[in-house]
Amino acid sequence: MFKAILKDIVTGCSGGVGAILMGFDGISIDQYLGEDNSVDLNLVGIEYSNIAKEVRRAAEILNVGTLSEVSIKTERFYIIIQVVTDEYFVGLIVDRSGNYGQGRYLLMREVPRLRIDLE
Amino acid sequence: MFKAILKDIVTGCSGGVGAILMGFDGISIDQYLGEDNSVDLNLVGIEYSNIAKEVRRAAEILNVGTLSEVSIKTERFYIIIQVVTDEYFVGLIVDRSGNYGQGRYLLMREVPRLRIDLE
Repeated sequence: MFKAILKDIVTGCSGGVGAILMGFDGISIDQYLGEDNSVDLNLVGIEYSNIAKEVRRAAEILNVGTLSEVSIKTERFYIIIQVVTDEYFVGLIVDRSGNYGQGRYLLMREVPRLRIDLE
Repeated sequence: MFKAILKDIVTGCSGGVGAILMGFDGISIDQYLGEDNSVDLNLVGIEYSNIAKEVRRAAEILNVGTLSEVSIKTERFYIIIQVVTDEYFVGLIVDRSGNYGQGRYLLMREVPRLRIDLE
Protein backbone atom coordinates (compact mmCIF):
# COMPACT_ATOMS: atom_id res chain seq x y z
CA MET A 1 0.00 0.00 0.00
CA PHE A 2 2.70 2.46 1.05
CA LYS A 3 5.02 1.16 -1.65
CA ALA A 4 2.43 1.84 -4.36
CA ILE A 5 2.13 5.47 -3.24
CA LEU A 6 5.92 5.88 -3.01
CA LYS A 7 6.24 4.37 -6.49
CA ASP A 8 3.64 6.83 -7.85
CA ILE A 9 5.72 9.70 -6.47
CA VAL A 10 9.08 8.46 -7.81
CA THR A 11 7.89 7.41 -11.24
CA GLY A 12 5.69 10.51 -11.62
CA CYS A 13 8.63 12.83 -10.99
CA SER A 14 11.10 13.54 -13.77
CA GLY A 15 14.48 12.54 -12.32
CA GLY A 16 12.92 10.75 -9.34
CA VAL A 17 15.53 8.46 -7.75
CA GLY A 18 13.72 7.00 -4.75
CA ALA A 19 11.32 7.69 -1.89
CA ILE A 20 11.18 6.45 1.67
CA LEU A 21 8.53 6.56 4.39
CA MET A 22 10.25 6.64 7.74
CA GLY A 23 9.82 7.34 11.43
CA PHE A 24 11.70 10.20 13.07
CA ASP A 25 13.25 7.38 15.11
CA GLY A 26 15.08 6.29 11.94
CA ILE A 27 13.07 3.11 11.35
CA SER A 28 11.92 2.78 7.76
CA ILE A 29 8.34 1.66 7.05
CA ASP A 30 8.62 1.30 3.31
CA GLN A 31 10.61 2.56 0.35
CA TYR A 32 10.67 2.55 -3.41
CA LEU A 33 13.86 2.83 -5.41
CA GLY A 34 13.77 3.55 -9.15
CA GLU A 35 16.05 1.84 -11.62
CA ASP A 36 19.69 2.66 -12.42
CA ASN A 37 20.99 4.31 -9.38
CA SER A 38 23.54 3.77 -6.70
CA VAL A 39 21.85 5.33 -3.70
CA ASP A 40 21.48 3.42 -0.44
CA LEU A 41 18.02 4.69 0.38
CA ASN A 42 18.00 3.22 3.85
CA LEU A 43 21.23 4.99 4.74
CA VAL A 44 19.91 8.25 3.29
CA GLY A 45 16.75 7.84 5.34
CA ILE A 46 18.60 7.26 8.59
CA GLU A 47 20.91 10.25 8.06
CA TYR A 48 18.01 12.50 7.16
CA SER A 49 15.81 11.34 10.01
CA ASN A 50 18.49 12.80 12.29
CA ILE A 51 18.37 16.06 10.38
CA ALA A 52 14.57 16.14 10.35
CA LYS A 53 14.59 15.51 14.11
CA GLU A 54 17.10 18.34 14.63
CA VAL A 55 15.03 20.71 12.50
CA ARG A 56 11.84 19.78 14.36
CA ARG A 57 13.56 20.36 17.69
CA ALA A 58 14.97 23.71 16.53
CA ALA A 59 11.54 24.81 15.27
CA GLU A 60 10.11 24.03 18.72
CA ILE A 61 12.87 25.82 20.64
CA LEU A 62 12.70 28.88 18.42
CA ASN A 63 8.93 28.94 18.46
CA VAL A 64 8.75 29.27 14.69
CA GLY A 65 5.84 26.84 14.43
CA THR A 66 5.58 23.21 13.43
CA LEU A 67 7.96 21.92 10.78
CA SER A 68 6.32 20.92 7.52
CA GLU A 69 9.05 20.64 4.88
CA VAL A 70 12.82 20.51 4.51
CA SER A 71 14.53 20.72 1.10
CA ILE A 72 18.21 20.07 0.62
CA LYS A 73 20.14 20.78 -2.54
CA THR A 74 23.50 19.07 -3.03
CA GLU A 75 25.75 18.76 -6.08
CA ARG A 76 24.02 15.56 -7.19
CA PHE A 77 20.51 15.60 -5.75
CA TYR A 78 17.54 17.44 -4.38
CA ILE A 79 16.26 15.84 -1.19
CA ILE A 80 12.74 16.85 -0.14
CA ILE A 81 11.37 15.85 3.24
CA GLN A 82 7.73 16.39 4.17
CA VAL A 83 6.25 15.68 7.55
CA VAL A 84 3.37 13.17 7.38
CA THR A 85 2.45 12.85 11.07
CA ASP A 86 4.11 13.63 14.42
CA GLU A 87 6.02 10.38 14.07
CA TYR A 88 6.58 9.88 10.34
CA PHE A 89 8.01 11.71 7.35
CA VAL A 90 8.42 10.95 3.67
CA GLY A 91 11.66 11.71 1.83
CA LEU A 92 12.07 12.00 -1.94
CA ILE A 93 15.39 12.08 -3.79
CA VAL A 94 15.42 13.79 -7.18
CA ASP A 95 18.37 14.03 -9.55
CA ARG A 96 19.71 17.58 -10.00
CA SER A 97 18.77 17.33 -13.68
CA GLY A 98 15.20 16.35 -12.69
CA ASN A 99 12.15 18.40 -11.84
CA TYR A 100 12.29 19.53 -8.22
CA GLY A 101 8.97 21.41 -8.35
CA GLN A 102 7.17 18.37 -9.71
CA GLY A 103 8.60 16.25 -6.88
CA ARG A 104 7.45 18.73 -4.28
CA TYR A 105 3.99 18.85 -5.79
CA LEU A 106 3.65 15.05 -5.93
CA LEU A 107 4.78 14.71 -2.31
CA MET A 108 2.29 17.35 -1.23
CA ARG A 109 -0.46 15.58 -3.17
CA GLU A 110 0.30 12.12 -1.74
CA VAL A 111 0.99 13.02 1.90
CA PRO A 112 -2.73 12.91 2.82
CA ARG A 113 -2.99 9.37 1.36
CA LEU A 114 0.04 8.25 3.37
CA ARG A 115 -1.43 9.88 6.47
CA ILE A 116 -4.75 8.02 6.11
CA ASP A 117 -2.93 4.69 5.75
CA LEU A 118 -0.78 5.40 8.81
CA GLU A 119 -3.74 6.08 11.06
CA MET B 1 29.92 45.84 4.27
CA PHE B 2 28.29 42.49 5.10
CA LYS B 3 25.40 44.25 6.82
CA ALA B 4 24.65 46.30 3.69
CA ILE B 5 24.40 43.13 1.60
CA LEU B 6 22.24 41.39 4.22
CA LYS B 7 20.00 44.46 4.35
CA ASP B 8 19.64 44.42 0.55
CA ILE B 9 18.48 40.81 0.75
CA VAL B 10 15.98 41.35 3.59
CA THR B 11 14.49 44.60 2.34
CA GLY B 12 14.40 43.35 -1.27
CA CYS B 13 12.36 40.30 -0.32
CA SER B 14 8.64 40.62 0.28
CA GLY B 15 8.11 39.29 3.82
CA GLY B 16 11.85 39.32 4.61
CA VAL B 17 12.31 39.08 8.39
CA GLY B 18 16.07 38.95 8.80
CA ALA B 19 19.33 37.55 7.45
CA ILE B 20 22.48 36.31 9.14
CA LEU B 21 25.98 35.51 7.92
CA MET B 22 27.44 32.83 10.12
CA GLY B 23 30.18 30.25 10.48
CA PHE B 24 29.32 26.56 10.62
CA ASP B 25 30.90 26.80 14.07
CA GLY B 26 27.87 28.88 15.16
CA ILE B 27 29.70 32.20 15.43
CA SER B 28 27.82 35.01 13.70
CA ILE B 29 29.76 37.48 11.54
CA ASP B 30 26.95 39.91 10.86
CA GLN B 31 23.18 40.10 10.69
CA TYR B 32 20.38 42.37 9.64
CA LEU B 33 16.96 42.28 11.25
CA GLY B 34 13.97 44.04 9.65
CA GLU B 35 11.44 45.99 11.65
CA ASP B 36 8.45 44.65 13.61
CA ASN B 37 9.40 41.17 14.46
CA SER B 38 10.09 39.07 17.45
CA VAL B 39 12.74 36.70 16.14
CA ASP B 40 16.02 36.21 17.99
CA LEU B 41 18.18 36.00 14.90
CA ASN B 42 21.27 34.97 16.78
CA LEU B 43 19.46 32.05 18.38
CA VAL B 44 18.01 31.05 15.02
CA GLY B 45 21.49 31.18 13.52
CA ILE B 46 23.03 29.00 16.20
CA GLU B 47 20.28 26.40 15.94
CA TYR B 48 20.50 26.31 12.17
CA SER B 49 24.28 26.18 12.09
CA ASN B 50 23.92 22.83 13.86
CA ILE B 51 21.44 21.70 11.26
CA ALA B 52 23.59 22.96 8.37
CA LYS B 53 26.57 21.12 9.87
CA GLU B 54 24.53 17.91 10.18
CA VAL B 55 23.33 18.22 6.60
CA ARG B 56 26.87 18.86 5.35
CA ARG B 57 28.13 15.83 7.26
CA ALA B 58 25.31 13.65 5.92
CA ALA B 59 25.99 14.81 2.35
CA GLU B 60 29.63 13.78 2.77
CA ILE B 61 28.84 10.39 4.30
CA LEU B 62 26.24 9.59 1.67
CA ASN B 63 28.43 10.82 -1.15
CA VAL B 64 25.62 12.93 -2.58
CA GLY B 65 27.95 15.84 -3.34
CA THR B 66 28.61 19.14 -1.65
CA LEU B 67 25.72 20.83 0.11
CA SER B 68 24.59 24.08 -1.46
CA GLU B 69 21.16 24.93 -0.04
CA VAL B 70 18.75 23.96 2.71
CA SER B 71 15.18 25.27 2.84
CA ILE B 72 12.93 24.75 5.82
CA LYS B 73 9.22 25.49 5.89
CA THR B 74 7.52 25.86 9.26
CA GLU B 75 4.08 27.15 10.22
CA ARG B 76 5.37 30.71 10.56
CA PHE B 77 8.45 31.03 8.35
CA TYR B 78 10.52 29.89 5.44
CA ILE B 79 14.18 29.55 6.39
CA ILE B 80 16.63 29.42 3.49
CA ILE B 81 20.29 28.56 4.07
CA GLN B 82 22.88 28.88 1.31
CA VAL B 83 26.49 27.85 1.65
CA VAL B 84 28.89 30.75 0.98
CA THR B 85 32.25 29.07 1.59
CA ASP B 86 33.49 25.91 3.33
CA GLU B 87 33.27 27.79 6.59
CA TYR B 88 30.36 30.20 6.22
CA PHE B 89 26.70 30.21 5.29
CA VAL B 90 23.99 32.83 4.98
CA GLY B 91 20.49 32.29 6.36
CA LEU B 92 17.37 34.21 5.40
CA ILE B 93 14.06 34.12 7.26
CA VAL B 94 10.94 34.94 5.25
CA ASP B 95 7.41 35.18 6.60
CA ARG B 96 5.07 32.45 5.31
CA SER B 97 2.97 35.19 3.69
CA GLY B 98 6.11 36.51 1.95
CA ASN B 99 7.79 35.61 -1.32
CA TYR B 100 10.00 32.56 -0.84
CA GLY B 101 11.15 32.44 -4.47
CA GLN B 102 12.25 36.06 -4.35
CA GLY B 103 14.25 35.38 -1.19
CA ARG B 104 15.98 32.41 -2.79
CA TYR B 105 16.81 34.43 -5.86
CA LEU B 106 18.22 37.36 -3.86
CA LEU B 107 20.36 35.02 -1.76
CA MET B 108 21.68 33.33 -4.87
CA ARG B 109 22.46 36.73 -6.42
CA GLU B 110 24.27 38.07 -3.34
CA VAL B 111 26.25 34.99 -2.30
CA PRO B 112 29.11 35.79 -4.72
CA ARG B 113 29.42 39.29 -3.21
CA LEU B 114 29.55 37.84 0.31
CA ARG B 115 32.11 35.31 -0.86
CA ILE B 116 34.39 37.99 -2.29
CA ASP B 117 34.24 39.97 0.94
CA LEU B 118 35.00 36.89 3.02
CA GLU B 119 38.15 36.06 1.08
